[in-house]
Amino acid sequence: MAEAISFLAPRADVLARRSEIVADLADLLAPECLIHEPRELMPFETDAFVSYRRMPLAVALPRSTAEVAAVMKYCHRYGIPVVPRGAGTSLSGGAIPQEDAVVLGLSKMNRILDVDFANRTATVQAGVTNLNISENVSADGFFYAPDPSSQLACTIGGNIGMNSGGAHCLKYGVTTNNLLGVKLVLTDGTVIDLGGKALDAAGYDLLGLVCGSEGQLGIVTEATVRLIAKPEGARPVLFGFDTSEQAGACVADIIAAGIVPVAIEFMDKQAIEICEAFAHAGYPLDVGALLIVEVEGSEAEMDDMLKSIVDIARTHKVKTVRECQSATEAALIWKGRKSAFGATGRIADYICMDGTVPLSQLSYVLQKTTEIVDHYGLRVANVFHAGDGNMHPLILFNANDPEDAAKAEAAGNDILRLCVDAGGCLTGEHGVGIEKRDLMRHQYAEVDLAQMMSVRAAFDPGWILNPSKVFPLDGRNAA
Amino acid sequence: MAEAISFLAPRADVLARRSEIVADLADLLAPECLIHEPRELMPFETDAFVSYRRMPLAVALPRSTAEVAAVMKYCHRYGIPVVPRGAGTSLSGGAIPQEDAVVLGLSKMNRILDVDFANRTATVQAGVTNLNISENVSADGFFYAPDPSSQLACTIGGNIGMNSGGAHCLKYGVTTNNLLGVKLVLTDGTVIDLGGKALDAAGYDLLGLVCGSEGQLGIVTEATVRLIAKPEGARPVLFGFDTSEQAGACVADIIAAGIVPVAIEFMDKQAIEICEAFAHAGYPLDVGALLIVEVEGSEAEMDDMLKSIVDIARTHKVKTVRECQSATEAALIWKGRKSAFGATGRIADYICMDGTVPLSQLSYVLQKTTEIVDHYGLRVANVFHAGDGNMHPLILFNANDPEDAAKAEAAGNDILRLCVDAGGCLTGEHGVGIEKRDLMRHQYAEVDLAQMMSVRAAFDPGWILNPSKVFPLDGRNAA
Repeated sequence: MAEAISFLAPRADVLARRSEIVADLADLLAPECLIHEPRELMPFETDAFVSYRRMPLAVALPRSTAEVAAVMKYCHRYGIPVVPRGAGTSLSGGAIPQEDAVVLGLSKMNRILDVDFANRTATVQAGVTNLNISENVSADGFFYAPDPSSQLACTIGGNIGMNSGGAHCLKYGVTTNNLLGVKLVLTDGTVIDLGGKALDAAGYDLLGLVCGSEGQLGIVTEATVRLIAKPEGARPVLFGFDTSEQAGACVADIIAAGIVPVAIEFMDKQAIEICEAFAHAGYPLDVGALLIVEVEGSEAEMDDMLKSIVDIARTHKVKTVRECQSATEAALIWKGRKSAFGATGRIADYICMDGTVPLSQLSYVLQKTTEIVDHYGLRVANVFHAGDGNMHPLILFNANDPEDAAKAEAAGNDILRLCVDAGGCLTGEHGVGIEKRDLMRHQYAEVDLAQMMSVRAAFDPGWILNPSKVFPLDGRNAA
Repeated sequence: MAEAISFLAPRADVLARRSEIVADLADLLAPECLIHEPRELMPFETDAFVSYRRMPLAVALPRSTAEVAAVMKYCHRYGIPVVPRGAGTSLSGGAIPQEDAVVLGLSKMNRILDVDFANRTATVQAGVTNLNISENVSADGFFYAPDPSSQLACTIGGNIGMNSGGAHCLKYGVTTNNLLGVKLVLTDGTVIDLGGKALDAAGYDLLGLVCGSEGQLGIVTEATVRLIAKPEGARPVLFGFDTSEQAGACVADIIAAGIVPVAIEFMDKQAIEICEAFAHAGYPLDVGALLIVEVEGSEAEMDDMLKSIVDIARTHKVKTVRECQSATEAALIWKGRKSAFGATGRIADYICMDGTVPLSQLSYVLQKTTEIVDHYGLRVANVFHAGDGNMHPLILFNANDPEDAAKAEAAGNDILRLCVDAGGCLTGEHGVGIEKRDLMRHQYAEVDLAQMMSVRAAFDPGWILNPSKVFPLDGRNAA
């Protein structure tokens, strides 16, 4: 693909000192914790936003907070850029390195340090995968709520960096709502603890600020998260509609009625076909749009809530309502949804947008999205967290055709502008990264960006942490 | 009371220019929006933390964001301290002025700007009272969740400044969990918008940072908050125990089981007697401690949850379980609880601590609190949000006896240190203000405070906003 997004030019002084830097890092890290051979660096060139790639200077894989601090202290002293990396599943290019950067990978810090049922918390190292937390407490009847589709691979550190969400965040909130504390290595290697097992914290909410700051304010090495008791039961129910507009309007009315199911997922016809072909989830193929609504609680509670939702769906001419009959069927329904990105990747290249809109704008934005993609002569599959207004249009294109790729990127940008103009925002859970960086000016005035950059400077005055991301490259001296 | 807590020395240059400053402010504000006569300034000398008082230089009561911006621009230019004020109900002295400060009161900005049921949001000016929001949407079946005991008087702007909580925050979260956007006037008068009606926002979570920042990062003039649908039904249930330790252990076990009622409030024998004498709420007087547990939902849901809670309470030898029989009785039960502070004020002077502890430490901290207060020869009434681990010991003393007052302050500080040492924190919802400022070093290392102060400097480099609060006066140049 032609590169529409630029990176900061690598610093010549850093590149010139490459072998010296590698030798210095070798003093701080065990041999198996430092990667510098070009062939071995290749897996770190990009992340799940594969349109862009850069070879890093080296990859550090520290095993402890002390080692992270040592690497940061060294890089800070010499002004060497540092790009933190969890599992490399970022969809916005948050973990894509640059030629003069040390990638700081947290994958070796993968231990669960403490599970405290009395306080309903788990404390884990940053490289622990999202799913691993839930697996560790499942037998005791608990789980960790945010559930990105990549939860098998993605790490809690990456989740904190991007304030990740997931299908079940409608009821339980996203990462920031489930995060109680972190251990944070500051740019100069100082280690601070934010939050903890008690409600709130005196002084400013630096914990909330760090969550979603895309690795630019420090390196999270440990996190304390909230555990939630598993409900008595849970039931995904399929609601099929003739049109996307009907389904969108139904979601808006459910939310406007104050009903909060665990999840309301949306799939349009294209997405249904793709996912069904891959997962054989049993989705109806004779509908134009599908909602997966999950309710939970006792049988009576689920029946109660479902009844209210069915009543609303009827006013939008729902065509099919199908409750699943078994745990196996429920698992299949979710497997179909969660494999949407992978299944789409089998039939075409795609880029996935992540705009968020007020619920009242859902139908309008769906309709306009189709118009935009049609205008570029491309196809789109919509599969997203509808209850949160968190759109995920997957724009299908052929990556081997530069013209097609440029059109896809242009269509994606048009869709994100549409979301912002509808009162929404550029990203619900994937982060700004490098993907949406140059659109930040569409969302924010200079004064807004300047204030964010001042805050950034209060943590990283040398601008070494993940430097090409989040803020447009020009005008950075505003801070 | 002898003043144990110092204020910043007033700036002589500002005091010397008093009449000039008043004249300049008179150019920016209508006559009824500027107070400068000493007699009229008196109501602004202190807030609900009445142990300390200072006469401000003037009080500005702007009617619009533009007027707030004009005042801030002026004060910023001349380095004049500004102390923001909502209803003056702060329990930590957050709104107490100083001699060289302009009090910026938001009381005239009391309009509800927008109620949007489709997106379940309300947008209000900062001076709107907490209860006013719920009253405005109640007929449509919605409410605003955080409910401080002062909700009849306290403003949403003050709630945001202190990240206020309330009895019903166990299920619905505190202010930060219910805040979607603000209009913020920066120190230099620039106006920025943070957040909005859509999920999340691209870039850093400045909205979360501003919430709880005690008026030091800017002046909130408007807020968009989440509305929640009223439950089908709600039922407070009284659980009486022989001892505080039994009640505390019961709370910990409810939470550890993953059960989340709407509220779990705790009252010890002293608090029960005080509240019952005032409100005639029908509390049992033959118990040593009382829990008010509120469940909500359909009758079946409430019965289900109650059954689980009663089972747990039985293992802690619960003596009385009493469900209320009517809406009148329910209202009385809450009236008793919410008037606890006022009722206590009728029988003695008191200071109310606001430490928060992990749930597993509840019984231990209650026991130690009694020991501390006994040691000083004082009495304590405990009435607090137990489900959140948010302690509120009311230390009773005689304000006309300086020795008694000094003992009360010392006991309060000992209790807060106890909370921190038990893994908790200095404040759950009342804020640091001036009350807990000098204890911040017990909670935080210098590097933690330095990082917070750097963030503060990114918003207010001249340190003019609420300058005597939150951070210990010495060592401020660390930032």
